Amino acid sequence: MENREIYFDNSATTKVSEAVIEKMLIVMQKDYGNPSSMHRKGMEAENYIKEARAEIAGILKAESKEIFFTSGGTESNNLALIGTAMANRRSGNHIITTQVEHASVGNVMKYLEEQGFRVTYLPVDACGCVSVSDFADAVCEDTILASVMYVNNEVGAVMPVAELAKVLKEKKKDAVFHVDAIQAFGKYPICPKRMGIDLLSVSAHKFHGPKGVGFLYIRDKLKIKPILFGGGQQQGLRSGTENVPAIAGMAAACAEAYRNLEENRQVMIGLKDYFIDQVSQLEGVTVNSQSGEAGAPHIVSVSFAGVRSEVLLHALEEYGISVSAGSACSSNKPAVSATLKAMGIRKDLLDSTIRFSFCENNTKDEIDDCIFKLNALLCKLRLYTRH
Amino acid sequence: MENREIYFDNSATTKVSEAVIEKMLIVMQKDYGNPSSMHRKGMEAENYIKEARAEIAGILKAESKEIFFTSGGTESNNLALIGTAMANRRSGNHIITTQVEHASVGNVMKYLEEQGFRVTYLPVDACGCVSVSDFADAVCEDTILASVMYVNNEVGAVMPVAELAKVLKEKKKDAVFHVDAIQAFGKYPICPKRMGIDLLSVSAHKFHGPKGVGFLYIRDKLKIKPILFGGGQQQGLRSGTENVPAIAGMAAACAEAYRNLEENRQVMIGLKDYFIDQVSQLEGVTVNSQSGEAGAPHIVSVSFAGVRSEVLLHALEEYGISVSAGSACSSNKPAVSATLKAMGIRKDLLDSTIRFSFCENNTKDEIDDCIFKLNALLCKLRLYTRH
Repeated sequence: MENREIYFDNSATTKVSEAVIEKMLIVMQKDYGNPSSMHRKGMEAENYIKEARAEIAGILKAESKEIFFTSGGTESNNLALIGTAMANRRSGNHIITTQVEHASVGNVMKYLEEQGFRVTYLPVDACGCVSVSDFADAVCEDTILASVMYVNNEVGAVMPVAELAKVLKEKKKDAVFHVDAIQAFGKYPICPKRMGIDLLSVSAHKFHGPKGVGFLYIRDKLKIKPILFGGGQQQGLRSGTENVPAIAGMAAACAEAYRNLEENRQVMIGLKDYFIDQVSQLEGVTVNSQSGEAGAPHIVSVSFAGVRSEVLLHALEEYGISVSAGSACSSNKPAVSATLKAMGIRKDLLDSTIRFSFCENNTKDEIDDCIFKLNALLCKLRLYTRH
Repeated sequence: MENREIYFDNSATTKVSEAVIEKMLIVMQKDYGNPSSMHRKGMEAENYIKEARAEIAGILKAESKEIFFTSGGTESNNLALIGTAMANRRSGNHIITTQVEHASVGNVMKYLEEQGFRVTYLPVDACGCVSVSDFADAVCEDTILASVMYVNNEVGAVMPVAELAKVLKEKKKDAVFHVDAIQAFGKYPICPKRMGIDLLSVSAHKFHGPKGVGFLYIRDKLKIKPILFGGGQQQGLRSGTENVPAIAGMAAACAEAYRNLEENRQVMIGLKDYFIDQVSQLEGVTVNSQSGEAGAPHIVSVSFAGVRSEVLLHALEEYGISVSAGSACSSNKPAVSATLKAMGIRKDLLDSTIRFSFCENNTKDEIDDCIFKLNALLCKLRLYTRH
């Protein structure tokens, strides 16, 4: 019997939407000019960029000139953190972040430590959230930058970013607040100005946009240095011929995501809560994510006692079900998850944890199917272990 | 009368080929997984990357592990130069380049000077070429890196890169040789190992591939540091989810370009020589590029005495003809061309120079059309100036 394909790995990447592909095709086939060219074909290409910037700025209630296009989430985070740290070197050398950031923040912090910056890595509670008072205590005279993710990519914990911003600015007015919103954009209304966010990183392929493109919101007049040098595109902050088809495609994905924001979120929360309810009824299961509005709408982390996550992942794969062991964004190197460790997950469960991540196109029927197969698999796999 | 579209700005960017688009569509619509995911959809995505690497390695007679994907030419050049300089800091602090490099090399050199490196900018002759003996003289005990473009983007001068590599290695065995091949790849057979090239930068959208993607050839075992940090993809040297559709598309463009390399080049040389012959017959014209094999097959720089390039560019645009004033890659900021200045072009012609750049799909008929219109325009425009 052929298994249908069930894709529950939407936090790793999503299927590109048809509207996005249509837009990209027009740009690639017809309006293929270089936006830096001064002739009409160049201007037409530049118009796509202007439109994309306006679309995104509208969603964030920001200004067009505050939107900078990058090659994706990793570059957005690198530009935000390295660019800010280097530009504010003379004001201080202390940076605050958490123990559960994505590698594209965590490994940048390690690089900045090598460059002489001092980094505080804040712990999280059992839900994966950083405490506002811990954060407040960490802010000092020397603090120039803080970086906290909006939604954790492994368990879906939602950080109190607006409160953190407020506390930061109260204690150190000039400190810069960066938010990695890569798992949050397209799931929440985000207004950086109202929320006190100076820098916001977004990646298009997490919400049905193309791979290889993202953006960084940079508050107007913020001090930041480029990390790539060249032709001076994008106000000199991000040189290189703009990836016009992907930028136009990302804008289309943004428009789709925010046109149906509440509706899609309710669908995802419905799926998530149903999944949590069903999976909790299986034996030896610990759910590491919060149901309802307390957690992100699309991510459920589940530990299956006595089963190695890699084994379960490949067994589900045989049934056509795609899931992730920990975070998928770390290049085939399954290491013990720093996030789960920081949350204090029982040691024997660290290597038995699977992430299920949904999108609005998944169905209850797919969940039923997955639970049915999980149940069968758990019995079978546990027979082989620890006896 | 409607003017047909004539695109003579192929050095700025090219139209994406249909084979490339087809490939990208399959990846976006069907094989949209994250190559870092451990399930089948991830492996399928990873296979496109492996295939692309093998395709490109085959063309360069290199190994797959020597090919690193980037977001384009600018990032390739930045990674090559910053990555090498930082990794070899302890061996010396002298770098050699030329006065006619693209901004994505030139402005990286300025950044490296700020970081304490000493950079020698070599002059060029009237054809835009650097002299091998000047280059040899510049190499010293402290030299760690040299960077020379293969084909100049403004006039099509072809640099003697293999000879330069030889001279460099003779005088300083461990010095690294980087070649910006962004205007050369797809036009010449390039074998980095045979030519003594350690690092080679390529951008896909210059040869009918997609924008937003390129690669850097890095000789095996070369000492180089990453400039972006994160999930550790691509041997830790270029973190970030790979842009699978664009990488697959670039590989398709590479295959097409090298399948028909000689044929396409002869077509372009034919067009170029015909254009040079025709344009030379107009009044007050100086051709800054070399005909035949002496210059790149696709680039002709022409100075039109007494006519401002911007005016001529927009007049041609009215006729549907796309050309470039100097280099198009510098973000709408038409400055006086450093390349033309370095070549010793007469001062009054610096601001009267247009670049025509062809691809194999252009025709003689288009050139006839362009020459006819140029002739009419020159008479008209010169009436209005200098009287």
